[in-house]
Amino acid sequence: MKFWSELTKQINPYVPGEQPQDKEYIKLNTNENPYPPSPKVLDAVKKAANESLKLYPDPDSNKLKQSISEFFGVEKNMIFTGNGSDEVLALCYPAFFNPDKPILFPDITYSFLPVFASLFNLNYETIPLSEDFSINIFDYKKDNTGIIIANPNAPTGKYLELAEIRQLLEFNKNSIVIIDEAYIDFGGESAIKMTGEYENLLVVHTLSKSRSLAGIRLGYAVGNSKLIEALNRIKSSFNSYTIDRICSAAGIAAFKDSDYYADISRKIIKTREYAEKEFIKMDFKAIPSKSNFLFVTHKNIKAEQLYISLKKNGILVRYFKKPRIDNYLRITIGTDEAIDELLKTLRIIIKTENRD
Amino acid sequence: MKFWSELTKQINPYVPGEQPQDKEYIKLNTNENPYPPSPKVLDAVKKAANESLKLYPDPDSNKLKQSISEFFGVEKNMIFTGNGSDEVLALCYPAFFNPDKPILFPDITYSFLPVFASLFNLNYETIPLSEDFSINIFDYKKDNTGIIIANPNAPTGKYLELAEIRQLLEFNKNSIVIIDEAYIDFGGESAIKMTGEYENLLVVHTLSKSRSLAGIRLGYAVGNSKLIEALNRIKSSFNSYTIDRICSAAGIAAFKDSDYYADISRKIIKTREYAEKEFIKMDFKAIPSKSNFLFVTHKNIKAEQLYISLKKNGILVRYFKKPRIDNYLRITIGTDEAIDELLKTLRIIIKTENRD
Repeated sequence: MKFWSELTKQINPYVPGEQPQDKEYIKLNTNENPYPPSPKVLDAVKKAANESLKLYPDPDSNKLKQSISEFFGVEKNMIFTGNGSDEVLALCYPAFFNPDKPILFPDITYSFLPVFASLFNLNYETIPLSEDFSINIFDYKKDNTGIIIANPNAPTGKYLELAEIRQLLEFNKNSIVIIDEAYIDFGGESAIKMTGEYENLLVVHTLSKSRSLAGIRLGYAVGNSKLIEALNRIKSSFNSYTIDRICSAAGIAAFKDSDYYADISRKIIKTREYAEKEFIKMDFKAIPSKSNFLFVTHKNIKAEQLYISLKKNGILVRYFKKPRIDNYLRITIGTDEAIDELLKTLRIIIKTENRD
Repeated sequence: MKFWSELTKQINPYVPGEQPQDKEYIKLNTNENPYPPSPKVLDAVKKAANESLKLYPDPDSNKLKQSISEFFGVEKNMIFTGNGSDEVLALCYPAFFNPDKPILFPDITYSFLPVFASLFNLNYETIPLSEDFSINIFDYKKDNTGIIIANPNAPTGKYLELAEIRQLLEFNKNSIVIIDEAYIDFGGESAIKMTGEYENLLVVHTLSKSRSLAGIRLGYAVGNSKLIEALNRIKSSFNSYTIDRICSAAGIAAFKDSDYYADISRKIIKTREYAEKEFIKMDFKAIPSKSNFLFVTHKNIKAEQLYISLKKNGILVRYFKKPRIDNYLRITIGTDEAIDELLKTLRIIIKTENRD
């Protein structure tokens, strides 16, 4: 591989969930929202499709930050925006971490986290989740250059109470604690309310899940203005204009129509609760979830086998061939119809497999 | 600055041209296109504003790459896409460069280049342009981890003939040569035609200039498939989905309407030639330009003074307070009307200043 850097040769890139183009699937594999974006968002995009696209966007995304800051009741200089929460998380690495100490995160969590560390030549240490996949915050009481916790965690869906995050912030005052709340709107309570109190807290959100805008790429972080300034310095050393004019217009409209989004999140929670009961009836174990997905394992049938059988039947779920979780499936909560189709198909697969 | 990494403390971020929101300016400072995007592009954006925005985009942007590859008559696996050419250039650094040798680029060129090196902890060496701001390729005959040349160069607008780039590729076969052709459509000839022949050549383009889409953020690179694979590995270690659904639709439509864009590029070239003559009449020296801007210096009046006076009169041009170029102005070619307004204002300013 002539011309490749040593890093390119060595790095092990992140692999996103399949986005197959070959046929129509019931897509329950990338935690997208089954409901469309607010009609007001689509109108805003259409309105933004005008001559002004010839001009660069505001590099500081001031109007977008204003609307996010009003939504959460924090100052505008406490908001950072990025091209999806992946970009926000990626930029956190050079902004806050030094190579002399490890970044700490759970052994089972968003699998992009170790890749970011390789890209920026930083060190990390994974902290094992308990047997039941819960996070014991006292395991993080060790020297570090920063801590990253997804809450609810992925791919488990397990939620950590704010009181525990507060304890973590209290005993880890010398480095930053980043809480990735991609799934917070499906039953959890956001740590954003503590950003005024803790200068070491940064909360990262995305519009890809509860705001039904995975196709538009918008994420943001909320934290003390000094943390945001660090992110701005690194972003301005990477790409001046990460948020385009359309994306900004869509984001502003999304934060204005909170009733619509609260409503679809409620629907998803209801479907999740229904699905969980049905999974248990079919001899699955489901990890208690506060997210828009369920993490399940079956008593008899291997997860990989179920994943393959479902795919053959036109239903995509996520399977991770990784230690500790290779007998689990992560299933996105779709519409009631999609979930019923999944349950129906699973019942047939399970009956067939049990008979073999 | 508690919680800032050492890098954040030390880095000197790039500063883009002003995007003031205080009043309406005649904006000739960020090399945007004065003509709107093709109406077909705006239609495509409106059409893409639909329910599918709830789904992630194709992480590989296959359809967009297909349309770019057809436009240039190269294979699809020779195309890489990014969130503006800034992101494409930024990702080139970890993809191709090692820290043991310097990256080479001119002392006067796109001022983001040294910042990318700092972000990824790489080394660079600047090679002085000749007195007349031309690039002498033989100055690049030295040990390096890669060479970056903007052609036409910015902010000078000066063009390097393809024959010279070919020579550079010939004597620099052990490292990559990246040609940033952001301004190539305003009179230059693209090196893309040599990408099949030279495995060490990568050509970077943007839709922000000749395609009137600065507001949409889309850039791409064309090169040997092994180079593209390196970029894909690094991109997938940073952000899975850098190109959103709307951006992709806009890009596809832009490559389909090449007549429209050829026409507006011709208009801009004509206006540039007119403006150049007028500047010379006013005792400016103008560097010969194959871009959508002119780099000019006045016989008597300091560039900084002209910049300030123009801004007071509602006209923004770009002034760089940097060695060797601090008596020059970079002036974007606008519509004939905008350029006439600029010329009229300059005549008054110059008369006033000369009288003092």
